[in-house]
Amino acid sequence: MQQRLSIITLGVKDVKSATDFYENKFGWSKLPSSNEHITFMQLNGILFALFETAELAKDATIESNGSGFKGFTLAYNTRNEQEVDDIIAELAKKGVQIVKQPSKVFWGGYSSYVADLDGHLWEIAYNPYLEIDEMGNIV
Amino acid sequence: MQQRLSIITLGVKDVKSATDFYENKFGWSKLPSSNEHITFMQLNGILFALFETAELAKDATIESNGSGFKGFTLAYNTRNEQEVDDIIAELAKKGVQIVKQPSKVFWGGYSSYVADLDGHLWEIAYNPYLEIDEMGNIV
Repeated sequence: MQQRLSIITLGVKDVKSATDFYENKFGWSKLPSSNEHITFMQLNGILFALFETAELAKDATIESNGSGFKGFTLAYNTRNEQEVDDIIAELAKKGVQIVKQPSKVFWGGYSSYVADLDGHLWEIAYNPYLEIDEMGNIV
Repeated sequence: MQQRLSIITLGVKDVKSATDFYENKFGWSKLPSSNEHITFMQLNGILFALFETAELAKDATIESNGSGFKGFTLAYNTRNEQEVDDIIAELAKKGVQIVKQPSKVFWGGYSSYVADLDGHLWEIAYNPYLEIDEMGNIV
């Protein structure tokens, strides 16, 4: 197995609402291959998908019941601290739930968290030790 | 916000065991920046991190209790169907839990699922509609 990942699929209650969230709050666009059942968005070298939670569990042949912390987080890293503040201010203005306001963290970074409509957590953070190329890839 | 993602962090019960899993079953390597508290692995343009579930929740300032379906899946896409069979056979031989044996799916692909030690689901699949470049990026 190569050291790589192709798709992250988030289970959502309603694909249309979740898609609206990422389109209107994050300002992202979906791919033409999206349909009423599934949304695909092209990120840096990976696909981001939104699919009904029950259907996602069914696809994996497991029970769809789940509650509480989902046990994972996604991070969007910025190029400086100011960008964290700017993004959080913009998202708050758009009504996005700010789970943790930007603050200095012990490892030397500057971090905040927001939640999407289904409670999936996005960390918006600046990490001075990580290099991001112009395409947005961690290098 | 650019349409990109920087890091996926999986909450795990034990960082060492989880790291061993990805090193020995998937055959992946960690970055030198890893330490006893967190493991980083460089994937295609993103980082993959393993961090104790309770600590991850604490970082996000939320309750760490959670049960059942985690509401997301990660996918590793192959370049043909045979590769799905080969990977699943290899992982099964190494004792990895095969959640769903490879099978044709309605959308035209060939898909299987495995679980890591903490129940995080990886779909190993061939999707004839997705192009993967030599670096492993979805293009």
